[in-house]
Amino acid sequence: MDTFSFDRLVIFGVGLIGGSLARALRERGGARRGGVIVGVSRSIASAERALALGVVDEVAALDDDRQLAHALAGADLVLIAAPVAQTAALLARIEPFLGEATLVTDAGSTKGDVVAAARAALGARVSQFVPGHPIAGRESSGVEAALPDLYVGRNVVLCPLPENRPEHVARIEALWRAAGADVRTMDAEQHDRVLASVSHLPHLLSFALVEQIVSEADAALKFSFAAGGFRDFTRIAASSPEMWRDVCLANRGALVDELDAYTGVLARLRAAIVAGDGATIEAVFARSREARTEWQERGANGVAPRVPGDLAPE
Amino acid sequence: MDTFSFDRLVIFGVGLIGGSLARALRERGGARRGGVIVGVSRSIASAERALALGVVDEVAALDDDRQLAHALAGADLVLIAAPVAQTAALLARIEPFLGEATLVTDAGSTKGDVVAAARAALGARVSQFVPGHPIAGRESSGVEAALPDLYVGRNVVLCPLPENRPEHVARIEALWRAAGADVRTMDAEQHDRVLASVSHLPHLLSFALVEQIVSEADAALKFSFAAGGFRDFTRIAASSPEMWRDVCLANRGALVDELDAYTGVLARLRAAIVAGDGATIEAVFARSREARTEWQERGANGVAPRVPGDLAPE
Repeated sequence: MDTFSFDRLVIFGVGLIGGSLARALRERGGARRGGVIVGVSRSIASAERALALGVVDEVAALDDDRQLAHALAGADLVLIAAPVAQTAALLARIEPFLGEATLVTDAGSTKGDVVAAARAALGARVSQFVPGHPIAGRESSGVEAALPDLYVGRNVVLCPLPENRPEHVARIEALWRAAGADVRTMDAEQHDRVLASVSHLPHLLSFALVEQIVSEADAALKFSFAAGGFRDFTRIAASSPEMWRDVCLANRGALVDELDAYTGVLARLRAAIVAGDGATIEAVFARSREARTEWQERGANGVAPRVPGDLAPE
Repeated sequence: MDTFSFDRLVIFGVGLIGGSLARALRERGGARRGGVIVGVSRSIASAERALALGVVDEVAALDDDRQLAHALAGADLVLIAAPVAQTAALLARIEPFLGEATLVTDAGSTKGDVVAAARAALGARVSQFVPGHPIAGRESSGVEAALPDLYVGRNVVLCPLPENRPEHVARIEALWRAAGADVRTMDAEQHDRVLASVSHLPHLLSFALVEQIVSEADAALKFSFAAGGFRDFTRIAASSPEMWRDVCLANRGALVDELDAYTGVLARLRAAIVAGDGATIEAVFARSREARTEWQERGANGVAPRVPGDLAPE
């Protein structure tokens, strides 16, 4: 772990994501003691929960100009960790109070829309903004769910802009490395395409399966026979509807491309099933199993392998 | 748990499913001691592993007329627990040796095709065959993976035929109850429709997602960013390609109906995404989350809730 020091870090949205970064910097020993962490939220009550838990040192209300100016004065780092749909409004709100030496990053799940919002809100000062996405989470949300180790071994993607100075990108990298993350860099378009494929599309497909069952007359009977395969396939259908609505809209271009490719695969499989073409079906399934097993065995991305004896296909 | 007694139970295919029933009858105390359990397999080596583990008392090779006749002589119960595609051939092989007092059941994941196969192979003696499906499994297979508690709290579906005598259906019910299962009854068509929806379709969709990623040029990059949501969504894509090929073909009618309904849901969601219709997207996601959460909280089907602190949407 690299050591990392900062003077004043201002976190907009001290929930699971922002709170876990604050706790990581405080509790993991990778950061020099002495930096002040400020929590800013729309409702002061939620920032004050973070203060009471010792996750932040100071709080400010977003809609109070004086408090906001005070929070940002002398800040060397700002993290935007609010729902991604609020990023544009937050950047516009921050801009008038933003010092020239302050670096801003974010934690949004989509990046193309965030880059566009940052350009609109910050103008030439977009050079101070390094877009980022920590790929980590938990089922529970809110600052109470924040963990100092949430980012350990997880990927954080940075999507540097042409305007960013390399030392600024390096500083945001060091921030996340201090929290234990692996930092990787790609452009926003590539980020959005990759995440559409391995995260956004599976969420959409999972929500859609439950929707299909719910909307049928025999829903109760069907649910009563759902077992382990259904449980895991639909776990992500218990995710936040608001967050995933925003992700689907923010990344609609890449998501629709992936969805269309996916329905193409389904059409090929449907044709094979109707034709009784067992060889094609088995070849697809075997290729999938091999790739999935290899992915799991590599133990990629700090995702723990499942426990032995876990439920299997019914 | 009911007590249950039998004289001679012959299991065709002593793997996870057949072996677990044998162990349940032996080790769970619900069955009167003294009944003989015979394992029959295509390769005598696999039956002999079951014998060595003490899971069965006797073994017979399927292709040996003398051994097969001996195995079935005096049998009161037969369980077919081989891959479902072998059911027709197994029933035809058993038929000449089948005593009038022997009841036969099976453990196949599809039932319409099994009923048709039984009618073809057994003719009027189909009255001795009570179709069944224990909805249970593990990631691992083979007799070494068999567990005495595999069926505890799990659903076993029986699909009685009009020709079955009620006391015969009751006897097969008692067999599975002795293993700790909840026994439910429905017709084969309904069984196949329900399972297509909550089991077969999710497996197809999960295999298809991995197939889509594998077939793209940036597959390695995408896999390297796959996290917890992907892991659970695709866990069932590590299932047996042969078994799921057979299930897809055996239940093709119901599966294609469910797949078409599902692609209809996807088309509606796609249209909402393209139109930027956040309200529709959120309404679908919210309905799904509510139904999924309610299902989980009911703790249906012996499926344990996930451990706290598990990975969440990234």
